[in-house]
Amino acid sequence: MAFLRDRFEKDVEKSALSYSASINFDQRLYKQDIAGSIAHARMLVHNSIISEKEGELIIMGLTAIRQEIDDSKFVYKMALEDIHMNIEARLTEKIGDVAGKLHTARSRNDQVALDMRLFIKETTQDIIKRLTELQESLLKQGEAYKDVVLPAYTHLQRAQPVLFTHHLLAYFEMLQRDKGRFQDCLKRTDIMPLGSGAVAGVPYKVDRQFLAEKLGFSRVSENSIDAVSDRDFVVEFQSCASIVMMHLSRLAEEIVLWSTAEFGFIEIDDAYATSSSIMPQKKNPDIAELGRGKTGRVYGNLIGILTVLKGLPLAYNRDLQEDKEGLFDTVDTLEATLRVFGGMVKTFKVNRERARAAVADDYILATDLADYLAKKGIPFRKAHSVVASLIHYALGQSRTLSKLSMEEYKQFSPSFTDDVYDITLETSLAARNLPGGTSPGQVELALVEAKKRLGG
Amino acid sequence: MAFLRDRFEKDVEKSALSYSASINFDQRLYKQDIAGSIAHARMLVHNSIISEKEGELIIMGLTAIRQEIDDSKFVYKMALEDIHMNIEARLTEKIGDVAGKLHTARSRNDQVALDMRLFIKETTQDIIKRLTELQESLLKQGEAYKDVVLPAYTHLQRAQPVLFTHHLLAYFEMLQRDKGRFQDCLKRTDIMPLGSGAVAGVPYKVDRQFLAEKLGFSRVSENSIDAVSDRDFVVEFQSCASIVMMHLSRLAEEIVLWSTAEFGFIEIDDAYATSSSIMPQKKNPDIAELGRGKTGRVYGNLIGILTVLKGLPLAYNRDLQEDKEGLFDTVDTLEATLRVFGGMVKTFKVNRERARAAVADDYILATDLADYLAKKGIPFRKAHSVVASLIHYALGQSRTLSKLSMEEYKQFSPSFTDDVYDITLETSLAARNLPGGTSPGQVELALVEAKKRLGG
Amino acid sequence: MAFLRDRFEKDVEKSALSYSASINFDQRLYKQDIAGSIAHARMLVHNSIISEKEGELIIMGLTAIRQEIDDSKFVYKMALEDIHMNIEARLTEKIGDVAGKLHTARSRNDQVALDMRLFIKETTQDIIKRLTELQESLLKQGEAYKDVVLPAYTHLQRAQPVLFTHHLLAYFEMLQRDKGRFQDCLKRTDIMPLGSGAVAGVPYKVDRQFLAEKLGFSRVSENSIDAVSDRDFVVEFQSCASIVMMHLSRLAEEIVLWSTAEFGFIEIDDAYATSSSIMPQKKNPDIAELGRGKTGRVYGNLIGILTVLKGLPLAYNRDLQEDKEGLFDTVDTLEATLRVFGGMVKTFKVNRERARAAVADDYILATDLADYLAKKGIPFRKAHSVVASLIHYALGQSRTLSKLSMEEYKQFSPSFTDDVYDITLETSLAARNLPGGTSPGQVELALVEAKKRLGG
Amino acid sequence: MAFLRDRFEKDVEKSALSYSASINFDQRLYKQDIAGSIAHARMLVHNSIISEKEGELIIMGLTAIRQEIDDSKFVYKMALEDIHMNIEARLTEKIGDVAGKLHTARSRNDQVALDMRLFIKETTQDIIKRLTELQESLLKQGEAYKDVVLPAYTHLQRAQPVLFTHHLLAYFEMLQRDKGRFQDCLKRTDIMPLGSGAVAGVPYKVDRQFLAEKLGFSRVSENSIDAVSDRDFVVEFQSCASIVMMHLSRLAEEIVLWSTAEFGFIEIDDAYATSSSIMPQKKNPDIAELGRGKTGRVYGNLIGILTVLKGLPLAYNRDLQEDKEGLFDTVDTLEATLRVFGGMVKTFKVNRERARAAVADDYILATDLADYLAKKGIPFRKAHSVVASLIHYALGQSRTLSKLSMEEYKQFSPSFTDDVYDITLETSLAARNLPGGTSPGQVELALVEAKKRLGG
Repeated sequence: MAFLRDRFEKDVEKSALSYSASINFDQRLYKQDIAGSIAHARMLVHNSIISEKEGELIIMGLTAIRQEIDDSKFVYKMALEDIHMNIEARLTEKIGDVAGKLHTARSRNDQVALDMRLFIKETTQDIIKRLTELQESLLKQGEAYKDVVLPAYTHLQRAQPVLFTHHLLAYFEMLQRDKGRFQDCLKRTDIMPLGSGAVAGVPYKVDRQFLAEKLGFSRVSENSIDAVSDRDFVVEFQSCASIVMMHLSRLAEEIVLWSTAEFGFIEIDDAYATSSSIMPQKKNPDIAELGRGKTGRVYGNLIGILTVLKGLPLAYNRDLQEDKEGLFDTVDTLEATLRVFGGMVKTFKVNRERARAAVADDYILATDLADYLAKKGIPFRKAHSVVASLIHYALGQSRTLSKLSMEEYKQFSPSFTDDVYDITLETSLAARNLPGGTSPGQVELALVEAKKRLGG
Repeated sequence: MAFLRDRFEKDVEKSALSYSASINFDQRLYKQDIAGSIAHARMLVHNSIISEKEGELIIMGLTAIRQEIDDSKFVYKMALEDIHMNIEARLTEKIGDVAGKLHTARSRNDQVALDMRLFIKETTQDIIKRLTELQESLLKQGEAYKDVVLPAYTHLQRAQPVLFTHHLLAYFEMLQRDKGRFQDCLKRTDIMPLGSGAVAGVPYKVDRQFLAEKLGFSRVSENSIDAVSDRDFVVEFQSCASIVMMHLSRLAEEIVLWSTAEFGFIEIDDAYATSSSIMPQKKNPDIAELGRGKTGRVYGNLIGILTVLKGLPLAYNRDLQEDKEGLFDTVDTLEATLRVFGGMVKTFKVNRERARAAVADDYILATDLADYLAKKGIPFRKAHSVVASLIHYALGQSRTLSKLSMEEYKQFSPSFTDDVYDITLETSLAARNLPGGTSPGQVELALVEAKKRLGG
Repeated sequence: MAFLRDRFEKDVEKSALSYSASINFDQRLYKQDIAGSIAHARMLVHNSIISEKEGELIIMGLTAIRQEIDDSKFVYKMALEDIHMNIEARLTEKIGDVAGKLHTARSRNDQVALDMRLFIKETTQDIIKRLTELQESLLKQGEAYKDVVLPAYTHLQRAQPVLFTHHLLAYFEMLQRDKGRFQDCLKRTDIMPLGSGAVAGVPYKVDRQFLAEKLGFSRVSENSIDAVSDRDFVVEFQSCASIVMMHLSRLAEEIVLWSTAEFGFIEIDDAYATSSSIMPQKKNPDIAELGRGKTGRVYGNLIGILTVLKGLPLAYNRDLQEDKEGLFDTVDTLEATLRVFGGMVKTFKVNRERARAAVADDYILATDLADYLAKKGIPFRKAHSVVASLIHYALGQSRTLSKLSMEEYKQFSPSFTDDVYDITLETSLAARNLPGGTSPGQVELALVEAKKRLGG
Repeated sequence: MAFLRDRFEKDVEKSALSYSASINFDQRLYKQDIAGSIAHARMLVHNSIISEKEGELIIMGLTAIRQEIDDSKFVYKMALEDIHMNIEARLTEKIGDVAGKLHTARSRNDQVALDMRLFIKETTQDIIKRLTELQESLLKQGEAYKDVVLPAYTHLQRAQPVLFTHHLLAYFEMLQRDKGRFQDCLKRTDIMPLGSGAVAGVPYKVDRQFLAEKLGFSRVSENSIDAVSDRDFVVEFQSCASIVMMHLSRLAEEIVLWSTAEFGFIEIDDAYATSSSIMPQKKNPDIAELGRGKTGRVYGNLIGILTVLKGLPLAYNRDLQEDKEGLFDTVDTLEATLRVFGGMVKTFKVNRERARAAVADDYILATDLADYLAKKGIPFRKAHSVVASLIHYALGQSRTLSKLSMEEYKQFSPSFTDDVYDITLETSLAARNLPGGTSPGQVELALVEAKKRLGG
């Protein structure tokens, strides 16, 4: 008769066991589970629920089991369903019946909630570190290619000239927000659920604050029913991760575009490119494409946990077991993608000439022309209309703006004077000299500021 | 220098390799891949692109490799990235350079499209079989509990009495539609893509019809660009699977409800129930809950592949590699859930007394009272209003309808006569004697009809 | 006291009424609702449940009400909650208490299921028509630009030359599958639910086949509980729509790319382009971008209805009211997007020169070189490797393949002979002369075939 | 020729105009748009870009237009596309060409980003207020029914007795977290984008801090490219809203369950219940069901905006226009649902007898029995096993635990003594006397604490 089944006439059906067992994936939580159990044992001693000697025995046993798992010597048994029971059963093998005292004043419901919170707390720190590394790659390239000008695009049409560094810093900002979101999520994860028991709280004098301190939590949960049914912190983590992946998918899209023969602004390092099984000339930006594609699974994991929780009555229901695999998949995806994108970004080469060529066509200075007129007192809306007509004329003649004669300019507005020819890429950039703008000075400041924010 | 990288200066970065390698999961396609390669080799011979002897050598080698994998003797190498290259490299080891001829007139782009189509074709047959098994479980129970009456609920309020068998047959219908949807999806999967090459078609006289016949396909693809970029059949499969899981989540919800102390209509067999780690009295419907929860991951996999494909330019992009893991997860989830639900449904016991008790309160016959009046010529809307007032009166007195005197009835409508007391559960059921209705005769017919549909 | 509330002590709270009333959006179903009621009235007469005269009165009233709504003279009342009750109340105003007989042998549960099925049946025909129109636009352009060659891209890298028409025909295939999916969905929508009543079937001798014929349905539903709780056809419609939008998002992405200064393959007609509020030179492909963006809302509507249905017990629950707004939004989005994409595709101009320039670089013929060697007996994998090294050499020299001397060729393989210089864009295209391939002959055939499939 | 189209040969196609115009929905932003424009005008004066007189004229005009819209006298024109151009055009009508100066140093790209941020900032405050109101309803009921005991459920099986107030406080905690999440989202929304122009920053000396102060923002955006392409704050808002709806769907599920004949713990007030069109006895919890169903649309809106943003290159693309309708729908759904749930929760009546009856069966004290043994030194796991066997025995005899003789108890463990009969509902509750536990004292404290947190 399997574990915990004294109440039943027969054993669980084999297919039902393999369907419900979680040991295949929740073994990943063994460190958290053992850390939680050790702290729990200390509390049981501290609160005189078990003897000091019993406590020592339990902790020694658990420590040995952790070593066994670290050394891949532990044999997981599906019949024991999950990581909690696998460890408890092994503990019984090692130290005998006293192992059974560990489950005093605790249920799997608060135990698994604890494990998940510990796991997410640690993972979040890792993710934040990786986000910082990718930011560092962006800054490195921003520093290296400070002189590169390329078009900013809106609607994927060349809009206005910007510094390449300014463009990279846009991604820096996104990742900075991502870090803030994870930090905020952490506040709601950093809550210690032990003491909640199965659902109603445990009938023992348990010092929950003691547990929180031992386990490095800032607060204890306020309501036992909520504590065992709450998976908000998983949803919120998945949501933060989805936004990161969305950002990376945008970066990936641009890296793919920039690597085309048509744009040609960058060349991915060979170490991050792959070839074709049939077309020998190809150099493909597979890493960027894969990262873009992996956005799908992370969005899917978010919708997965939201679906699980929809309409679930309180408190613990077995549906909640479905919180884990999607989380692990998101964590692995996010960590691997951030790591490999960090490498890819750090190593690509920028093709200054192709970038410069893309801003050579002076139609990209049209806004500057409109602002030129506006500064001479013509209402901007009118100035915009004048320049649009001018462009229409120039396009019809297949001529660039700088090639038009003053006479031609005057036909569109008498306000044009010779200084219109002074408008260049450089003046355009320099003019955007306000916080957040693309002038070389502002971008330099932003770069310095960004480094400071990382250093902090 | 790794495979296919003669064009590059350096090897792929290690983290990039592990990020992009798919061998961990696409090894699942080895049977399809080898079947496809064997057919391809036969075609190359058939179309005189390679010699008969070369063909034999290749096929012999592939057959041996399949055996190695069957016997778990094959060593997968991550450096070879995917199942296609792992097999090709092994083939080279076994038969030498002639192995390199297998890739003539083929690209990984059409090869992987083929593998996926073969896989889904086979899987769909399995799923349909499992759907049928669950239908059989429903029919078995429908047959066994033909006499059980319980309330049909709307808004989870007791609405009208129905036969339990009628209720089970509702699920039979859902699963029947599910099978139809998979069949329809199959039509669009059953299309042979080989010959499309990387994207433009192959520059060889290839008999694509020959390939289709050898591989059991009904049709060949019409356009090579579409053939290598099309993953509609994956999305459609995921969508069909999501609808199945939605159906099962509804069944699961009802099984959970019916197993409560409050409803108590069924008792799940011990073989499909689990206990609590802390509350010894508990008998939990974990299997049903897990099935309901697993709806989340399947919905997630659907949104995952839809996200991958959103906004992808033609033709093949590496993002498409993300079509696989979500598919495999859905397939495994669906097969396991159908199997275990089949067992759970087949073995639960119905508690006739609890069911009967739930329809004992004759308010559930209120609609019949309204129809009674309607049949006497009172417009139904008016009859409904009369009975509502009657109910309001009876509720105020805490009395059931059959306990009201004729005098009291008459106060609400003079059309009430003594035959109102003839309205019973049995007459209510019997009256719904039309196709699709819950009268015993109709349900018997439906049961017979259902069996016939399965037998077909 | 509001409608249908004789059982209650007080009126519904105002905010609760506005929260639950659906008249703001379900008024869109008035035609379906009235058509259903007229057929229902005919059946009531046909089955002698009401008199012929009553039937005539009801039908006359309903017909007049339809006219009122057509003429925007009908005043909807939120207190009457939904379209069904608004019409029924108005009918009572017009023809008196006999109106109350219309609800005999019918519930809102089967009534709304009918309305939804009628609506989707009609809508699907419209969508299929619009899909065909977009296919026609593709064929028109395919016909007009049969001579245009451009690169097929994989990984957004130039891969192999293809005919532009071949590329457009890839989208033709996608839309053809979309039509097949909608046709299949239609089979499962084309089922008549009346007679199911609230949930158990109605206690009247109702000729359901008569109703099906009058309303143009092929079949009647098999189970009353299923009939009132089934919304599969809505999910399936949403899924089909999501796949269409996914296809259009891919087309949109390409149109955006092709319209860039960098690609420059097409120019969108001014009638489908917009300008910038600040940058006068811009010509933006807004329509394509919006279509791509609107993919989001359609995916969202799919996940919305799947979420609604997850875990719902049978049979009707008010949650089901949430099936409508998402459906209407998807229908409107799909119809508008197909229409405007039809216009945009039909009118864009292809820039032959830019397309030709993109295939001028003969690296794009690398696969042909490998096949050249393969045809001389070198195993393809080896040939691929040889050409990759050749490319590496040529790139290092910044020379195109045709500029290499025979001596240089020979250094990579002795199998190269003078005929290697005969490989051109034209021979590359011509060589792909198999069904689905891009040779001019095959594309011509495909074009003819496509027209036939539309004409059918 | 339509607005801003001087560059084009022809007008936009009618269907394309109606497809791309946003005025139907973005008119909702008129207050934010005008507030933004007034602040912008003040800045233009402050920075001497326009004269004081021009500024006054513009502000006067804008103020008058706001009044026109407030009074529903403003006529929106689709040809003017969006709210920005509708207002600008009207301003021109009112004050002439000087209106054209308002668009100096601003683009629609930063303007719409501003409007969206202002809208979400205000909306978030409203949502937080409504969350608080629902919390107050929970506390009111928690106060009123402090004496009610009912089962806590896990797996929807009766698990352990808890105070009803304790159960309600679980929802209080969820909503408290929701407020925290919205507050955190607010930090990332509270960033002023003006000055970013179309994408590169504006070529004027603009005091962005001045703008931020006038508009009540804490910070200005750091990077102009990011500022016009960032919609993180919309995604994050949608994510916060999805979690709220998930919580409400759980509450709704429980309200539906508790209102069944089978559970019968509460009766919804008539003002929040509806009846059936056919079954006069029904009292349906439609509001709860609708709230549960509306979870679908909010999840859908989240996936919608995530899909829109996936793979979008920088900076502004027209796809971003799709950020609005889903947001407005979520805001309306959330506000209405919170409001109506507040009323429904505040007014339901608890049926003390039904609740008490559900805990009468003393199997619910099984955990207490196990803890009783554990406190006598038997390892908990062993104690659990003993009690499970005891339960199995009692179930077989259809007897409750308190009816077993001491002799019978002793058969299962010699540690049982007469004090086992002292275990009651009351001792069970009282024993859970730790923070977060369900003892009357702890719940009283939690209630006091909760009120304090709201008051704060």
